[in-house]
Amino acid sequence: MKAARAVLEYLKNNGVRHIFGIPAGSVNAFFDALYEMPEIEPVVTKHEGAASYMSAAYARYAGQLSVSIGCSGPGGTNLVTGAANAMREHLPILFLTGAVPVNTMGLNASQELDAAPVFQPVTKYSAIVKEGKNVLPEIMKACQIAISGVPGPVHIAIPIDVQHADIGNPDIPALIERKPILPDLDTIQKTAMALKQKKNGCILVGQGVRGSVESLIELAEMLNWPILTTPQAKGYIPENHPLLIGVFGFAGHEAASAIINDRTDEALLIVGSSLGETATSNYNQNLTKGRFAVQLDYDQTVFNRKYSIDIPVLGDIQLSLLMLIEELRVLGLSRGYTQFDDGEGEGGHDHDHEASNQQLMDYNTKNVLLEIQRLLPSNMRYSIDIGEFMSYVIHHMKVLDYDSYHINVHFGAMGVGIASAIGSSLAEPDRPVTCITGDGCFFMHGMEILTAKEHGLPILFIILNNARLGMVYHGHSLQFKRTHASFEQEAVNIAAMTEAMNIPSLRISSMEDIHADAINGLLQSNGPAVLEIALVDNNTPPMGDRVKFLSSFGK
Amino acid sequence: MKAARAVLEYLKNNGVRHIFGIPAGSVNAFFDALYEMPEIEPVVTKHEGAASYMSAAYARYAGQLSVSIGCSGPGGTNLVTGAANAMREHLPILFLTGAVPVNTMGLNASQELDAAPVFQPVTKYSAIVKEGKNVLPEIMKACQIAISGVPGPVHIAIPIDVQHADIGNPDIPALIERKPILPDLDTIQKTAMALKQKKNGCILVGQGVRGSVESLIELAEMLNWPILTTPQAKGYIPENHPLLIGVFGFAGHEAASAIINDRTDEALLIVGSSLGETATSNYNQNLTKGRFAVQLDYDQTVFNRKYSIDIPVLGDIQLSLLMLIEELRVLGLSRGYTQFDDGEGEGGHDHDHEASNQQLMDYNTKNVLLEIQRLLPSNMRYSIDIGEFMSYVIHHMKVLDYDSYHINVHFGAMGVGIASAIGSSLAEPDRPVTCITGDGCFFMHGMEILTAKEHGLPILFIILNNARLGMVYHGHSLQFKRTHASFEQEAVNIAAMTEAMNIPSLRISSMEDIHADAINGLLQSNGPAVLEIALVDNNTPPMGDRVKFLSSFGK
Repeated sequence: MKAARAVLEYLKNNGVRHIFGIPAGSVNAFFDALYEMPEIEPVVTKHEGAASYMSAAYARYAGQLSVSIGCSGPGGTNLVTGAANAMREHLPILFLTGAVPVNTMGLNASQELDAAPVFQPVTKYSAIVKEGKNVLPEIMKACQIAISGVPGPVHIAIPIDVQHADIGNPDIPALIERKPILPDLDTIQKTAMALKQKKNGCILVGQGVRGSVESLIELAEMLNWPILTTPQAKGYIPENHPLLIGVFGFAGHEAASAIINDRTDEALLIVGSSLGETATSNYNQNLTKGRFAVQLDYDQTVFNRKYSIDIPVLGDIQLSLLMLIEELRVLGLSRGYTQFDDGEGEGGHDHDHEASNQQLMDYNTKNVLLEIQRLLPSNMRYSIDIGEFMSYVIHHMKVLDYDSYHINVHFGAMGVGIASAIGSSLAEPDRPVTCITGDGCFFMHGMEILTAKEHGLPILFIILNNARLGMVYHGHSLQFKRTHASFEQEAVNIAAMTEAMNIPSLRISSMEDIHADAINGLLQSNGPAVLEIALVDNNTPPMGDRVKFLSSFGK
Repeated sequence: MKAARAVLEYLKNNGVRHIFGIPAGSVNAFFDALYEMPEIEPVVTKHEGAASYMSAAYARYAGQLSVSIGCSGPGGTNLVTGAANAMREHLPILFLTGAVPVNTMGLNASQELDAAPVFQPVTKYSAIVKEGKNVLPEIMKACQIAISGVPGPVHIAIPIDVQHADIGNPDIPALIERKPILPDLDTIQKTAMALKQKKNGCILVGQGVRGSVESLIELAEMLNWPILTTPQAKGYIPENHPLLIGVFGFAGHEAASAIINDRTDEALLIVGSSLGETATSNYNQNLTKGRFAVQLDYDQTVFNRKYSIDIPVLGDIQLSLLMLIEELRVLGLSRGYTQFDDGEGEGGHDHDHEASNQQLMDYNTKNVLLEIQRLLPSNMRYSIDIGEFMSYVIHHMKVLDYDSYHINVHFGAMGVGIASAIGSSLAEPDRPVTCITGDGCFFMHGMEILTAKEHGLPILFIILNNARLGMVYHGHSLQFKRTHASFEQEAVNIAAMTEAMNIPSLRISSMEDIHADAINGLLQSNGPAVLEIALVDNNTPPMGDRVKFLSSFGK
């Protein structure tokens, strides 16, 4: 058996059903082996960068190892952004790249590049394998590293000749499994005691809570403490839960800020957040000031970094939550909660109590997004790209179902929303997906809508087209009181472009254009559809936090 | 003065007139400073990868340092492919990236990434500057490294707060200049003696001869030896020169192969080639077998690598050529040449002596390219992308003027042809440029045609659309006798797409569609125009060399 085939057999045994990337001479042993392995479908993208984002979303939503592939040289380097993104998002991806034959290394073969050191700083493990017999062991090692501890990306480069090496008929190893990180029982008991003793507190939930939402809610109800989420965790907890206040941090809610800044809670329970810039409203010191801080995480590097933590609880979040719940039960707490009164009425969000009917009908980003959401199914998942619209989504859109937003404010790669929608749809075909993106992201990775079409994925792509890099425009304008002409471009009719790509497309330019018939028409497509929102919104987006952060260095 | 401003002043003094990249919060000090520096125009691209290729072409054609810029995180990593490409192409590019503020490092600020180690393996120098006072010295050091010795890319990351640091009113240093690499006079004299003594020989010219073509031709005429070029050097020497045989190596000519494989020349003079895979027809041992080998290069790592070299001449190519010419003159040689008889008639190329009129009218890649070239101005420069068509270009298209092709078979990044056309047009506005690309490359970086439009660049983009990754398809098919369904896609009408982008566009699907009126109509646009060639060519492209190389590892 060729080494390349053995790798694919191993991945197949581990549940891999898609490989994202672009074929080329230096990886053709893999693509040829796929010919006889219908269980694995290659998803050939338009740019490897998008493949790497698709892999990330696939890993997230399928809950398993995902695979990206690229040729030696540019295919590999085009995957680097996705590796850095996966590192930040703690997603297990195996990046496979081709390499020039071992005996031609250093001799300028086509597309020669030693990719291992390039990937090294943005992966948990990066290596090149130079002998056939080492291929399977190295792949196994890398995959184990990818899913272990704090999951993350790994990279293995395999030279052309090594891919073709006959490695006999090796035993293809059995499934790999992640060894759980068990919390320390004493620490859990100590934590339970401490939390019980505190009269009041609040809970800050980061994206690490994904997959543990029910436990988190149970714990919150036992403590009867209000829940704030980070921007990236928006969408994990449906907003009809009485304890949910809203988003703290970038583009977040006043009610959430008020809890942190104005209240004198005795305790703060942080669950699955690294307490980065966007999650902490620019490292706001009020977060832990005067509060007893408990932090649950599986990544020990996040403890006591910027904030002093009284009890760090190292362990898989779900295990820590279950054990905490059990201990609190032993201590006599039971589920139940009172409506949290944040002085802003239902749900705590910043509702537009004052908004007139006229304001609700103004053609602006906020109203457009809310109106479209009203017309979409409530179980819709929103894959949010990077841009001005992102802050409107975080601030205004509703959380109507579990796990309903994918917002990458951490690494913030333009186009990630487009590709993530595809990864999500492949991983969970029954969950409808809408991508919200902008013209900048569309021009960077929008051609992947064709990839969605080729795979028959019924994704609605909403493209907010303001013919400028809106987040740059507004951010710069707020910070410097002027902008640069290069932030704006001549408007392009994107719906006409995508219509020419044989994708059902609609361009709207007023609130009246948004109605059920129009939206339903797009949703009934068997593949992707495009809804272009032609709109230059000169309102300041709710992204003041970010600008304040940037401006603090420009004095 | 802010550090960012000082950097730009320094670059301006060094002739930088364009900065290629995408603005963002973490580089906004640079973009704000540009507001008051109309001498430098930002070229805001759709993807940073394309910006890096534009920079490369700009450095090549403007003959100077070029600059790319990207934000911290994804903007930086999106530039990595271009850094690796510039490293391979020996092009001096300064990659500037933003970074999170120094005191937030390690704290997960938005888009945090320590880019210095990622760029390190693909640049000559990569560093982060953490204090304002070090910014200008580090930039100067990096720029000097970029242009010195074997030129290449460098990378400097500057944190947001450091960009804004007030560094007083520093002296903005004067111009930097490249210190020439002087050839050793004894070596030149020894070489001249040796070359004179050899009765016959041939010259293999690589892309290092760019900028020294007149000297090369003078030397060739003094020796009266036939000239072969590498694929990447196609276009430097007009094909009406009697000594020019054609291309040796990937997609090259039989006449050139015959010289290397069948003749028993006494000498081989290699000028500006690293003797990589494509330049040597897969490391063909006949190249130097029985031949006295002289190699001129400014990169000492290329000597005696795969081929044993009798006299390596280290020095800038132009200097070595001028000194050799002078020594040969002293030895009594003078300019003059005889028509080289390669048994194939005029010019030595593989002409279609046998082709019937019918064959010349068949609608296939070769005929289409030749017919279009016949209708374009003879001083046209062709920026060639990566794909099946590349081999047809190398093999069949005419070299009618100096420096008329840009073919990147080395690093081979898809989309590089599209972006290089833009860099070329900005660097040499008077030289017309045509890009020859394919559907795969278009879907990867074709949105940059909008960038060309925004800058009013009159580039003709010829897009060969076969709805498949043709080079992969043919290469795989030749090697494995089968292909994978994922190499092909549903056809898209690209001209309709670009028409929707308000770009004059024409789609042709027969030889009859190609005529002067059609081509002239496109050329008369004030900006870019698109000529789509809808054509599935099932002929085997002249890329046998590459397949032989890949297949040799698949037995």
